[in-house]
Amino acid sequence: SLPVPRRHTPYFGQPDYRIYELNKRLQQRTEDSDNLWWDAFATEFFEDDASLTLAFCLEDGPKRYTIGRTLIPRYFRSIFEGGVTELYYNMKHPKESFHNTSITLDCDQCTMITHHGKPLFTKVCTEGRLILEFTFDDLMRIKSWHFAVRTHRELIPRSVVVGMHSQQDTSMLDQLSKNITRQGITNSTLNYLRLCVILEPMQELMSRHKAYALSPRDCLKTTLFQKWQRMVAPPGKRGTNFIAL
Amino acid sequence: SLPVPRRHTPYFGQPDYRIYELNKRLQQRTEDSDNLWWDAFATEFFEDDASLTLAFCLEDGPKRYTIGRTLIPRYFRSIFEGGVTELYYNMKHPKESFHNTSITLDCDQCTMITHHGKPLFTKVCTEGRLILEFTFDDLMRIKSWHFAVRTHRELIPRSVVVGMHSQQDTSMLDQLSKNITRQGITNSTLNYLRLCVILEPMQELMSRHKAYALSPRDCLKTTLFQKWQRMVAPPGKRGTNFIAL
Repeated sequence: SLPVPRRHTPYFGQPDYRIYELNKRLQQRTEDSDNLWWDAFATEFFEDDASLTLAFCLEDGPKRYTIGRTLIPRYFRSIFEGGVTELYYNMKHPKESFHNTSITLDCDQCTMITHHGKPLFTKVCTEGRLILEFTFDDLMRIKSWHFAVRTHRELIPRSVVVGMHSQQDTSMLDQLSKNITRQGITNSTLNYLRLCVILEPMQELMSRHKAYALSPRDCLKTTLFQKWQRMVAPPGKRGTNFIAL
Repeated sequence: SLPVPRRHTPYFGQPDYRIYELNKRLQQRTEDSDNLWWDAFATEFFEDDASLTLAFCLEDGPKRYTIGRTLIPRYFRSIFEGGVTELYYNMKHPKESFHNTSITLDCDQCTMITHHGKPLFTKVCTEGRLILEFTFDDLMRIKSWHFAVRTHRELIPRSVVVGMHSQQDTSMLDQLSKNITRQGITNSTLNYLRLCVILEPMQELMSRHKAYALSPRDCLKTTLFQKWQRMVAPPGKRGTNFIAL
């Protein structure tokens, strides 16, 4: 048998195929998948200016985290660092709509499925609404990812219940009855999102520091100056001004 | 927003997309999906001479059922009649190989996932090897489906364990610890497969009876006569003989 000849598949009009491919790519992750791997993953599926939002409700109220493109690789990585061995998204009846330069995929019944190995095999189904905006071109990458968690379900093997039944092991039962995620989200991902809120505004400063080797104080100064410049004369208008001069 | 313009997607080289589409079609099933719906489903994904084989091991030894094309719609239907509300196939690292007129998809880590509503929500993961042979043309339909079950896992919500814990309900625990499938296969599907073994050889008789309105005895006579004719002079050889005469 010969290798199958590959053709370029046009994605136009089938944004759900992109999520199928994203799932496939996530399957190919191994223990050795490093930052480079996750950067390549994000580059394949996310636009350079993409943003990702996760909304869910904890005991103390609703939470909403939005992170920019540079933090997206580590977001996905944090899921696996939280003990997940498999991750995929299952969409039921997604709806597409076509705009001038983008396609929106709105799925009210999306399930994020994760497999956890410890303390015993658990399948966590995090259900909610996923709204994706894709750029309408050959690559069809995601411009915005918005997942609002509605509910989650942690599933454990029936065989464990059988074991408990025969042993009447209450401490085991105690441990089993505890959720391993919060609304389907691992602690490592939650911590990462909290960190992002602090880190994200500092990113511009850090990249400036890296690029120009300026002191933190000077970085802050030039950043603030440029922010002020942009406020006074936004990029679009500035252009017109220059031409007018 | 406008409806998205559709293009014809060439499947060549991407047989796993066909299973993605099969899953999507299964999602569209409703309570009202009748025989016509299931026939259309089978026609979309299976060749006219397709066969489907299911191999698994029960307490009394290995079983292997092969059914022909006409019985395939009811096979899938029987899964839902057995209390399943959702069915999809998840393939991990499927391997494709290309032959002259067909493509083979060999997936050693295929999981058939079914959702069961009663007596409580259960997710059954039936794992095994799925080997599919597709016709290499525009439609890319399945010629043969071969699923060998290796193991299965029945998953129940953790929240149920919490409930049992507080109530110390042993009769409930008794009920919970019982599997609802046999090797991931519902009783209604098992019964159907057993029936198929009896029904399939009688199909030729029944269709002859329908077509020519012959009595059962005459149907059996003509069928046996034609079978004997085919044995004495197989179709291929008979042709050569006629030319030689």
